[in-house]
Amino acid sequence: ALYFGISRSGETSEVVMAMEKARTSGKGSFISVTAEAKSRLALKSERVIVFESAKEKSVVMTKSFTSMLFGVQLGILNTISHPDMDLIREEFIKTSEKILSTARDWTEETLKRDYKEIVFLGSGPLYGIACESALKVREMSSSLTSAYHTLEFRHGPRASLDRDSLVVVLLSDSAREEELKVAEEIREIGAQCTVIGDKIDNGISIGSGLNEFLRLVFYMPFAQYFGYYRAIKRGLDPDMPLNLTQVVKI
Amino acid sequence: ALYFGISRSGETSEVVMAMEKARTSGKGSFISVTAEAKSRLALKSERVIVFESAKEKSVVMTKSFTSMLFGVQLGILNTISHPDMDLIREEFIKTSEKILSTARDWTEETLKRDYKEIVFLGSGPLYGIACESALKVREMSSSLTSAYHTLEFRHGPRASLDRDSLVVVLLSDSAREEELKVAEEIREIGAQCTVIGDKIDNGISIGSGLNEFLRLVFYMPFAQYFGYYRAIKRGLDPDMPLNLTQVVKI
Repeated sequence: ALYFGISRSGETSEVVMAMEKARTSGKGSFISVTAEAKSRLALKSERVIVFESAKEKSVVMTKSFTSMLFGVQLGILNTISHPDMDLIREEFIKTSEKILSTARDWTEETLKRDYKEIVFLGSGPLYGIACESALKVREMSSSLTSAYHTLEFRHGPRASLDRDSLVVVLLSDSAREEELKVAEEIREIGAQCTVIGDKIDNGISIGSGLNEFLRLVFYMPFAQYFGYYRAIKRGLDPDMPLNLTQVVKI
Repeated sequence: ALYFGISRSGETSEVVMAMEKARTSGKGSFISVTAEAKSRLALKSERVIVFESAKEKSVVMTKSFTSMLFGVQLGILNTISHPDMDLIREEFIKTSEKILSTARDWTEETLKRDYKEIVFLGSGPLYGIACESALKVREMSSSLTSAYHTLEFRHGPRASLDRDSLVVVLLSDSAREEELKVAEEIREIGAQCTVIGDKIDNGISIGSGLNEFLRLVFYMPFAQYFGYYRAIKRGLDPDMPLNLTQVVKI
């Protein structure tokens, strides 16, 4: 088996323990992805991918998450010699420049209201992005947030929605039509609903032209800005969240 | 591949669609678990396990979830001719009789306070039970609830904890010591924390003597009672949750 161990500090206990187990059992080899070349994780793994750019002072992972995610994605694409690599790189850079101001405008507009709960929905690879988004907002602004698979949300979790809920739907390619219906149902209940998709009329358009796997990282600045500015609005320090430390050890 | 499709009504769109796909591709066979012998799911699956006892009028699955979970577990044990089957059945019946009043007493005591968020934590097989518990309370009482892997909770989600949070830790066998430390950290933050384990001093004891896989179902009545009585306290009808229907169709 081939394992990927991802840890900004390279010292997260659970990841280091998993790596040590894989090493001593001899049943797998470990590739670590980290910002720290001299960490326990990096020094003991068979292979290491070090992202210098992933270093950050903030307790909450933002720059480190997006740079490691994009770096690993690019690495995989390079491995399989993707024919459209030059085009992908070009679209990626163009979209990067644009998405930060889009996300900031949305945040400014959306923060005019207070919300009792903020919910992120995503399908397939976007489910992970929905979880990370909910986590960022929770960590920075000490808010109540949730993440669910988009269609799963209809099977129960939406029971708590009302006019004080904000739902952000991260639109995929593979289930786009069904997801738009879920957004419509959420609006009928009376909750606030923002849809972020690649090319979309009634919502926020990323406009990258990239498929759902390649554009994953562009959904993140919305939650990152939202958490940051909501924290400031609530009188909290987004760089020093409550109850957290930079490196988590058992 | 062998698929299990579980649906109380046997009409849940996603499960029926998955079953039809498995049938037409010819690449897998489908065992359905349902309360309705004449449902689309049951009629089109290769094999069907019908739990008559799983029928219920309530929109929120409670009786149906626990009876199907226990039934499937017993079925698996029977298949592998477990040597302690008689003992397990005996312990199971004894614990069943006892757990309902334990859960009811805990609910009555805990509901004396209001909470802004209720969090359920579980590891391994208990993570699923934590998710189901959070869902029950959300559905019945329109409350804000979350579920996380117990150790994962330390990696960020706990940022939102304060004196108005209730955390319920479902204690496993395999990570018991680490989980008890997580509970201790939660108490230090000042949040309310209940630990439910099989044999435990500082918390609620199920006392079944069964391992973590066999006693899964006994963690459920706590969330089920809590959701039910919290709904009544908030003036809601737990049998008719907001924004939900009994059968979910696309």
